[in-house]
Amino acid sequence: MEAARIGIAQVGFGYWGPNLLRNLAGIAGVEIVAVADTNPRRLGELSRGQPPIATADDYRHVLARSDVDAVVIATPADTHAEIAAAALAANKHVLVEKPLATRVEDARSLCALAERAGRVLMVGHTFLYNAAVRCLKSQIDSGALGDVYYVYAQRLNLGRVRRDVNALWNFAPHDVAIVLYLLDAFPREVSARGFAYLQPDVDDVAFVTMDFPNRQAAHLHISWLDPRKVRQTTVVGSRRMAVYDDLSSDARVVLYDRGVDRVPTVDSPRDFNDFGDFQLRLRSGDITVPALTVPEPLREECRHFIDCIRSGDRPLTDGAHGLRVVEILDAAQRSMQQHGRAVRIGE
Amino acid sequence: MEAARIGIAQVGFGYWGPNLLRNLAGIAGVEIVAVADTNPRRLGELSRGQPPIATADDYRHVLARSDVDAVVIATPADTHAEIAAAALAANKHVLVEKPLATRVEDARSLCALAERAGRVLMVGHTFLYNAAVRCLKSQIDSGALGDVYYVYAQRLNLGRVRRDVNALWNFAPHDVAIVLYLLDAFPREVSARGFAYLQPDVDDVAFVTMDFPNRQAAHLHISWLDPRKVRQTTVVGSRRMAVYDDLSSDARVVLYDRGVDRVPTVDSPRDFNDFGDFQLRLRSGDITVPALTVPEPLREECRHFIDCIRSGDRPLTDGAHGLRVVEILDAAQRSMQQHGRAVRIGE
Amino acid sequence: MEAARIGIAQVGFGYWGPNLLRNLAGIAGVEIVAVADTNPRRLGELSRGQPPIATADDYRHVLARSDVDAVVIATPADTHAEIAAAALAANKHVLVEKPLATRVEDARSLCALAERAGRVLMVGHTFLYNAAVRCLKSQIDSGALGDVYYVYAQRLNLGRVRRDVNALWNFAPHDVAIVLYLLDAFPREVSARGFAYLQPDVDDVAFVTMDFPNRQAAHLHISWLDPRKVRQTTVVGSRRMAVYDDLSSDARVVLYDRGVDRVPTVDSPRDFNDFGDFQLRLRSGDITVPALTVPEPLREECRHFIDCIRSGDRPLTDGAHGLRVVEILDAAQRSMQQHGRAVRIGE
Amino acid sequence: MEAARIGIAQVGFGYWGPNLLRNLAGIAGVEIVAVADTNPRRLGELSRGQPPIATADDYRHVLARSDVDAVVIATPADTHAEIAAAALAANKHVLVEKPLATRVEDARSLCALAERAGRVLMVGHTFLYNAAVRCLKSQIDSGALGDVYYVYAQRLNLGRVRRDVNALWNFAPHDVAIVLYLLDAFPREVSARGFAYLQPDVDDVAFVTMDFPNRQAAHLHISWLDPRKVRQTTVVGSRRMAVYDDLSSDARVVLYDRGVDRVPTVDSPRDFNDFGDFQLRLRSGDITVPALTVPEPLREECRHFIDCIRSGDRPLTDGAHGLRVVEILDAAQRSMQQHGRAVRIGE
Repeated sequence: MEAARIGIAQVGFGYWGPNLLRNLAGIAGVEIVAVADTNPRRLGELSRGQPPIATADDYRHVLARSDVDAVVIATPADTHAEIAAAALAANKHVLVEKPLATRVEDARSLCALAERAGRVLMVGHTFLYNAAVRCLKSQIDSGALGDVYYVYAQRLNLGRVRRDVNALWNFAPHDVAIVLYLLDAFPREVSARGFAYLQPDVDDVAFVTMDFPNRQAAHLHISWLDPRKVRQTTVVGSRRMAVYDDLSSDARVVLYDRGVDRVPTVDSPRDFNDFGDFQLRLRSGDITVPALTVPEPLREECRHFIDCIRSGDRPLTDGAHGLRVVEILDAAQRSMQQHGRAVRIGE
Repeated sequence: MEAARIGIAQVGFGYWGPNLLRNLAGIAGVEIVAVADTNPRRLGELSRGQPPIATADDYRHVLARSDVDAVVIATPADTHAEIAAAALAANKHVLVEKPLATRVEDARSLCALAERAGRVLMVGHTFLYNAAVRCLKSQIDSGALGDVYYVYAQRLNLGRVRRDVNALWNFAPHDVAIVLYLLDAFPREVSARGFAYLQPDVDDVAFVTMDFPNRQAAHLHISWLDPRKVRQTTVVGSRRMAVYDDLSSDARVVLYDRGVDRVPTVDSPRDFNDFGDFQLRLRSGDITVPALTVPEPLREECRHFIDCIRSGDRPLTDGAHGLRVVEILDAAQRSMQQHGRAVRIGE
Repeated sequence: MEAARIGIAQVGFGYWGPNLLRNLAGIAGVEIVAVADTNPRRLGELSRGQPPIATADDYRHVLARSDVDAVVIATPADTHAEIAAAALAANKHVLVEKPLATRVEDARSLCALAERAGRVLMVGHTFLYNAAVRCLKSQIDSGALGDVYYVYAQRLNLGRVRRDVNALWNFAPHDVAIVLYLLDAFPREVSARGFAYLQPDVDDVAFVTMDFPNRQAAHLHISWLDPRKVRQTTVVGSRRMAVYDDLSSDARVVLYDRGVDRVPTVDSPRDFNDFGDFQLRLRSGDITVPALTVPEPLREECRHFIDCIRSGDRPLTDGAHGLRVVEILDAAQRSMQQHGRAVRIGE
Repeated sequence: MEAARIGIAQVGFGYWGPNLLRNLAGIAGVEIVAVADTNPRRLGELSRGQPPIATADDYRHVLARSDVDAVVIATPADTHAEIAAAALAANKHVLVEKPLATRVEDARSLCALAERAGRVLMVGHTFLYNAAVRCLKSQIDSGALGDVYYVYAQRLNLGRVRRDVNALWNFAPHDVAIVLYLLDAFPREVSARGFAYLQPDVDDVAFVTMDFPNRQAAHLHISWLDPRKVRQTTVVGSRRMAVYDDLSSDARVVLYDRGVDRVPTVDSPRDFNDFGDFQLRLRSGDITVPALTVPEPLREECRHFIDCIRSGDRPLTDGAHGLRVVEILDAAQRSMQQHGRAVRIGE
């Protein structure tokens, strides 16, 4: 049986757009019908391709087409809410680039819209389709790491400085999404500090701490003003610890059989720390780098979107997940404005 | 002319004590007269050495000796204040291990005592006698880094877990001392988060942000519960950036001729970011690893103590410096108890 | 003034061919006229492109076209000589992938053919168009390294095992070309060892030593059966040393201000080695990573080919250079068959 | 039951000597009786110790003592044979630093002398008492690596340049001993190239290839004139591969579950290389860093010497092993003089 044809329109064809288009176009049964961008120069080559793709400078034109089943949105962050709402109102399935929206209420109303329309609403949190993140998740879920104490991540480079969003909103959606996925929990409060050097009021550096139930914590260090490119996530568990280094060619995920164990005090002559009733004993065993199969995450994400349209399943990174990310970023932003005061979500 | 003989007594002869003793004993004109430790087993070998050193289990015995000019204190942190006060009261010069004290008021009164007694009071902030930190400092002072925007440091390992102090008080005195030295400024407020996993109420992990005048900032990430050993300090300046990696054998300090420059908007066809009135242009030039001469920092510290006794000069890490470190740690501790609320020093 | 149009035919469209085509097609005034490959499946997309490109399964068809000025050959190594000779006989300029030929006499006669025809003959030794290799060369030529003592290179991975050529002929053309370029000299003799494990008589590993005049030497370590991917070239000079690591993202070329200096014996109290009439003194200064502008080397190579056609200049990697590479590989192969006996070139 | 007391005399107390003495002195039942060195200044502190040790400037004085059961020789390489022979003639057990001798016939006659005297003759090939080398060995012996194809080692730095021996005799004894131990086989022939830059006729760089039965091979790259410090041994097996990096703090031994497998040709649609009757298929699985317990190798070596004296067992690095190392170095030296001609051992 052949899969039903799905007609796709893409809105936004700048830096990231062509990657989405290329991956979607490679899926059987998917047809790219139209692309809209406010800058017509970017669209020049599309209409000359084989088959030619309809182009428009106003996204409303592509939403109006009846041969469009789903809309992919890769525009600047502050336009996501409006375009996604219009697409859902036009009864289209929607894949929107992260973040889902820049305001919590917008994100929430998009979720409601999708629910009412019975359409798929998915957010492009690509890292949840990444083999290394999946590996971390399966290590946690299998119990190999024991109780997860905390997670911290660094996402640093000297790179594209944005004017429309600060470094927090630009980079942290990735790490917040990863943390929520790994811990499968929602933080009670968020405290954050941000510092602006290059432009007034646009933070170049941010430090975010999330406080989860069960004493779990996560910390993010974000910067686009740093001498080195760093993309690391560390998970510290009671039994094992793991480091995911996105820039490593040979050791993307490293598992450390290390920890500090509490052991009863009796007859342990070689302990390194004796605290009366119990002792803390250092354990340092093997290090393992699991082999990962590495399909392109964006390709997995695009496939997942199409699969969910066909099956009616809820995407891994659905609107609700995207909303939670926005709620945390919003809380972090408010904490930054209050010099780090802990902000409760929904406060 | 021969330098005047200086008689030294050491109080505390545990993990770190023998290193101090060895370095002091190697300085011309210095004589180790007596060592006190509450655990007499540690002192066994000293009295059999050539020449034999007087030993005691009560530090008051060694303070009472008239042939002792200076006292070196390497005991647990919460005893520093009492012993240092007694030594100054006995008119001895004092070198006390970091931190100077565990309470701000104790640190402050030690400074006053030393002032009144006209004795040298020095704190063992060894990293300020380290060639790599000195190199960073000279790069900053020469203007090579431009305006320093911010500093961040990671001090992580899976190591000795303490019961008497948490990871903040154990590790952060190093980084706070380094930051104060590099920026030559005092923070207006401190916000911090800490998390305890191994023992109730003893934080294993801490994140500290210091807010300096002129928008400068510093961030510390401290942990004794981490899979990897990391000892890094990064300084981000407007002209250059620097990374000090204490564990690198070949590249202790790395200078990056990198940054993001604001340039006027006119006729700049190759800009990567045009913001109307100005543009931000990425600059990525040479990387340099300066050759460092590497004397043992502890040896430099010990020599500096003796030199200050002889010359009457104020030590680089004098009581006032040690007090500032304690004030910041104290503010960080209070912020941790309030979930990250920014705490003003002296609040 | 517009540059004259140059019509290009490409022969061979397998693994590497599309990269060549893409780069050539991007040069102003260049028109891709025809592509030949014995496997017609590979050519499918070309004839459907815009503009369509003529395709053929026999390279003779494309050589016969009068609108073809130059031929690019990317076929298996043992067919290079025949196809290049036919192209030169048809009065076409030729860019042939490395190695120029697999037999010395073939390489030599191609040079003669090109000379007689007055056509450009260029070999695709891409690394000589690489910014890092150019940087090494300029460091040597400027005298910054002093006298170059020796060069060694490792080219290792666990990768594509070939049946048509051994690891020596597959990988070493790169390193031999680099060494000849850097030292600007020709070895007097070559000794080599090779070892075959996966297939009978197809060496997986090779060690090659080249003996140059003036006591200079070069050593290559080649393997496609190794746990790690390594691409490094080290140049040891009397004043400075350099390492080129092709896999480093941040430090492609590293210059070490290091060496061992001979100094007169008089009044040198701090020497580390006193040999009577002279001393050897270790020098270990700064390390520098020069910023490199990194255009795609293959693009530079393609441009250079087109420029030489237009200007009549001799290419950097002309037939004579390609011949020297083949002579050295041939000598190495013969030495390998004789267990490492030093083989003189032309012997 | 208390172990019998063993009286030790040490000959040679320069760079390495104090390390040996310290380790021997720490073994129960061992008494350091006397130390000889031609430079009396080096011995100054010994006679003032507690208990005082007899000192001499002529090694014959310490050999003459009846309270000396065993002699440890840490003198320049070219004196090993004479002193070891004298010690064995005086009926002492002998531990001699590597190499056993600088001439094959001397090494051989020392073995015969020890045999006749019934004394232990052991050579200080420390690396065979190193936890990482032991780990490699156990991986090979357990079959985890499959058939070992080849081993290669790099031992490079910019370090102490010697006048008495070249880089081959200075560094390669370590690697030759390791290779013999790992492969448990003896090479049929050796080919080597050496290059002298700093001093006439003293090679600073050497490349050595050893040809073992069963097509196994080993390659050494030795230099004391290199910008970087490298201490690596790589073992390539048919099932797994291993790298031992002596300078790594965190990953001393790394095991790669990697290889190229020969598989029958039938129905293997995803093969990367199809060769008619069989295919070569790349395998790239997990990477593992086994936890090593790391006692000081020199301490293990010293204990082993004392144990062998007490038990009468033959040391792991006995005279016969030391002789084989000298035979290989001697063959390598002769090959270097003949520009790499393969030299058979005993030729």
